[in-house]
Amino acid sequence: MDFGAGFLVRGIGQLLTMDGPPGPRRGAARGEIGLVGKAALAVSGGRVLWRGPEKDLPAGSFRNLREIDLQGRVVTPGFVDSHTHPLFGKTRQGEFAMRAAGADYEEIAAAGGGILNSVRATRAADDSVIEANLRRVLSSMLSLGTTTLEAKSGYGLDDETEIRCLRILARVAPTVPQTILRTFLGAHALPTEYAGDPSGYLSFLKTEVLPLVAKEGLADFVDVFCEKGVFTPEESRRHLQDAQGLGFRVRIHADEFHDTGGAGLAVELGAMSADHLLSVSPENIARLASSDTVATLLPGTALFLNKPFPPGRALLDAGAAVALASDYNPGSCFCESMPFMVNLAVCACGFTVEEALVSATVNGAAALGLSETKGALSPGMDADFIAWNIDDYRCIPYHMAVPDVGAVFCGDEIRQPGERIV
Amino acid sequence: MDFGAGFLVRGIGQLLTMDGPPGPRRGAARGEIGLVGKAALAVSGGRVLWRGPEKDLPAGSFRNLREIDLQGRVVTPGFVDSHTHPLFGKTRQGEFAMRAAGADYEEIAAAGGGILNSVRATRAADDSVIEANLRRVLSSMLSLGTTTLEAKSGYGLDDETEIRCLRILARVAPTVPQTILRTFLGAHALPTEYAGDPSGYLSFLKTEVLPLVAKEGLADFVDVFCEKGVFTPEESRRHLQDAQGLGFRVRIHADEFHDTGGAGLAVELGAMSADHLLSVSPENIARLASSDTVATLLPGTALFLNKPFPPGRALLDAGAAVALASDYNPGSCFCESMPFMVNLAVCACGFTVEEALVSATVNGAAALGLSETKGALSPGMDADFIAWNIDDYRCIPYHMAVPDVGAVFCGDEIRQPGERIV
Repeated sequence: MDFGAGFLVRGIGQLLTMDGPPGPRRGAARGEIGLVGKAALAVSGGRVLWRGPEKDLPAGSFRNLREIDLQGRVVTPGFVDSHTHPLFGKTRQGEFAMRAAGADYEEIAAAGGGILNSVRATRAADDSVIEANLRRVLSSMLSLGTTTLEAKSGYGLDDETEIRCLRILARVAPTVPQTILRTFLGAHALPTEYAGDPSGYLSFLKTEVLPLVAKEGLADFVDVFCEKGVFTPEESRRHLQDAQGLGFRVRIHADEFHDTGGAGLAVELGAMSADHLLSVSPENIARLASSDTVATLLPGTALFLNKPFPPGRALLDAGAAVALASDYNPGSCFCESMPFMVNLAVCACGFTVEEALVSATVNGAAALGLSETKGALSPGMDADFIAWNIDDYRCIPYHMAVPDVGAVFCGDEIRQPGERIV
Repeated sequence: MDFGAGFLVRGIGQLLTMDGPPGPRRGAARGEIGLVGKAALAVSGGRVLWRGPEKDLPAGSFRNLREIDLQGRVVTPGFVDSHTHPLFGKTRQGEFAMRAAGADYEEIAAAGGGILNSVRATRAADDSVIEANLRRVLSSMLSLGTTTLEAKSGYGLDDETEIRCLRILARVAPTVPQTILRTFLGAHALPTEYAGDPSGYLSFLKTEVLPLVAKEGLADFVDVFCEKGVFTPEESRRHLQDAQGLGFRVRIHADEFHDTGGAGLAVELGAMSADHLLSVSPENIARLASSDTVATLLPGTALFLNKPFPPGRALLDAGAAVALASDYNPGSCFCESMPFMVNLAVCACGFTVEEALVSATVNGAAALGLSETKGALSPGMDADFIAWNIDDYRCIPYHMAVPDVGAVFCGDEIRQPGERIV
């Protein structure tokens, strides 16, 4: 057989295939990392051909593949970051510094802060600025090992800017090595034009924007910020049912600052994920655990906002499928590092090392409906993987805030931050 | 004048000189970053010749210097990391993973964990292993902007290994671009040979080890771990007075897990610094604030151990000189990133952006007695600095866990992690 321009990766000290038995929930796993020592991995056409103990390599096979010797390094699947907001006009470090200097939210809002700050800047920004911000973070994400991600709109809040952002995303996505799923988050906040009239805004989204997003095929999912002072569970239900009526799968920003019942709504609607969950109730932890909705934790946001960390252990103990994501955005978490989310999950949210790694790969893929192709390294799956400059996978969270990423293999690209290893 | 192999750095968008008026305490400053917009910086022989607004560059001067255009980037002094433990035989990710899986300290100790785990590994390690571990982290620190650091012994706890580690440090230090100050921390724990006999161990250190460290000039400081279950304040006082009798300056691991009065002892003895302070009492905050002892906070350790963060705001409000350091070590904080400590100080310890940057530079230098040469960019001071890939210094802590270090200038070396900018 001629495998063409593929790789045979040898000398893998520890291969984390992540293809242990799936848990009961939408392809998500519980903490089975599928560890293979002294392993090899054969890749062709961007897919895994074979992986296993190097001593079991089929004799004479893979002769046409380029050999790479990783000299004992660890290999894991690339990270799947299932919750990001990379489409915006400006960063918000001024507001961050005001908060650090003791300003409260009202003062920041009076100074033009918050989500509506990003909305003004995004509406005013040229396409080229939004595209440059997007490309910059996609490049950084790749260096940090993120090979699949979800990206949300939500800083336009009018038809022109929301659609414009999603079109930029549609244009950029095929030009980068990562796989990108797209989410319409028009219901991220109430724009000033509709102040006091959430119902009017949701009607506008239903009649003017959602049909256009559907017609142009600009989004895979629709999301809503269900939160005290933003959209109520009733408003959120209405919006997501509108979206489901047009064929969209849905996800919810749920129970971030207050327990408004967003997680319960996510289960009720069969949402792909309920995200944040800092304030989720014990009852809704139980409902999540018996559902197919992935509980998606964003511990970077808790740290960035100096809030208590999300209840990872409680969700895991209840049996929920738990994913980790970055929540990269300019207001509440300006951090795109998935290795750091793994650090935080272990140090501050009660995850074991193995649970954190599963949550950042397999379960992120489950939250995006990509369990068949992403997040694990079974034969036939996409060969997106990270070669780490370590010989023990437990060093991934142990080396806090210093990711030992050696090389990232994603589609046709091999990205090597810092020291070159291949 | 012939300035030889120097630099004229132009196009600095924001230069943080950190040379505002010093506070009352040992050269430490309060939050004055000395911001100069559109600045230039002239360097020769490793020293700052001139810095100021680019438009004020003396006409015709600096013609012999190599010009570097930073195109609007931010420049800050290099970080001064005043508390690290980089001399050890093995990392301890296994123990970290056990803790994440719910093991308590007793179980970990029963499995051979804790400081004595590192002691066993360090005693058993060849010099080459200890040296390789040291060189690896010094290289990573440089990439992350640390141009001056303090390094402690303390994983030998016998005369042979403690002296051996300090000799390795003495041999390596002149071969790296950073400035390294050295601390003898024989009183880091009670070795098994002296179990139940702290007095005997301290007598051994006094008669057998400290004189040798002094005679060979192997340390600038002596430190002690004053903590419940380790050394009492009385034992700590005795040991540090022994050290002071031999001419050493002293520092204290104080009030980390319990308020045993270590910070008060630091003030009483005129220690350079009292470090950790997670559990410092209000009375001792007040004593620190009226002393020359620098309150050194290590927020990475709090996160790594899932403890409450140190009381930065209370110390700053009281008027203490506060430094930030990494506490890099294999047991309680395997993190050498000073940019991350700045992130944590702002997000979780109540620092303003400016206070955090001052604490990680000027005040780190004050904690090491290096205020005349390090931590700021005044004419005549050492030209150790970081060119950041950002145009607003507030992005240093805002971009959480992703350091935008563009190039690090330290001695004769220019270290450029990732993308090359010069």
